[in-house]
Amino acid sequence: MSSDCLFCKIASGDIPSTRVYEDDVCLAFEDLHPQAPTHILVIPRQHVASMDTAGTEHKEMLGHLLLAAAKIARDKGFAEDGYRTVINTNGDGGQTVFHLHVHLLGGRQFVFPPG
Amino acid sequence: MSSDCLFCKIASGDIPSTRVYEDDVCLAFEDLHPQAPTHILVIPRQHVASMDTAGTEHKEMLGHLLLAAAKIARDKGFAEDGYRTVINTNGDGGQTVFHLHVHLLGGRQFVFPPG
Repeated sequence: MSSDCLFCKIASGDIPSTRVYEDDVCLAFEDLHPQAPTHILVIPRQHVASMDTAGTEHKEMLGHLLLAAAKIARDKGFAEDGYRTVINTNGDGGQTVFHLHVHLLGGRQFVFPPG
Repeated sequence: MSSDCLFCKIASGDIPSTRVYEDDVCLAFEDLHPQAPTHILVIPRQHVASMDTAGTEHKEMLGHLLLAAAKIARDKGFAEDGYRTVINTNGDGGQTVFHLHVHLLGGRQFVFPPG
């Protein structure tokens, strides 16, 4: 845990969030500025700043985040219609919170380019 | 391998591609319709149709794909500036080839919403 990290504080419960899923490795909550009818962030409990600081030791965790997103999409009933999962890294990527997170977006048609 | 899958044929070399990275688990090649100065697809050698058909047995592979994208971004010199990684699933997601793939996009500023 990083004491000044917004998402660590959400993971610990110090900052409230609307949780939609959690397990030993990750938790998922609604994005406060949704870009689609469903817009959920899936984050690891462990503090990892970004994909650019992730290493081989995080391989299983990263796969876990994607599988959690896929499970949430099925549970919420939009997996068959489809969805988009996005990870932003550093400035050009549009990363604003430096605790790695997967955006899970569903409930509408997504176009290319992806931003 | 799925005999009628475009990306399986790229993985086997039956269809040419501009490869930028490969290892035992995955390969990466330039997207034919780039949406950014760098637009690379990272795919598993194993045929998995989409995130919606991926299971726990694919957890390490999925993490591997993301770490490979991060490595490619570092190797190409745009990791520090930043990048976006995107997985499209089924129709709403905009998935057109049903062999799971990570879009790695770099070289410009990416905006929200991501498509």
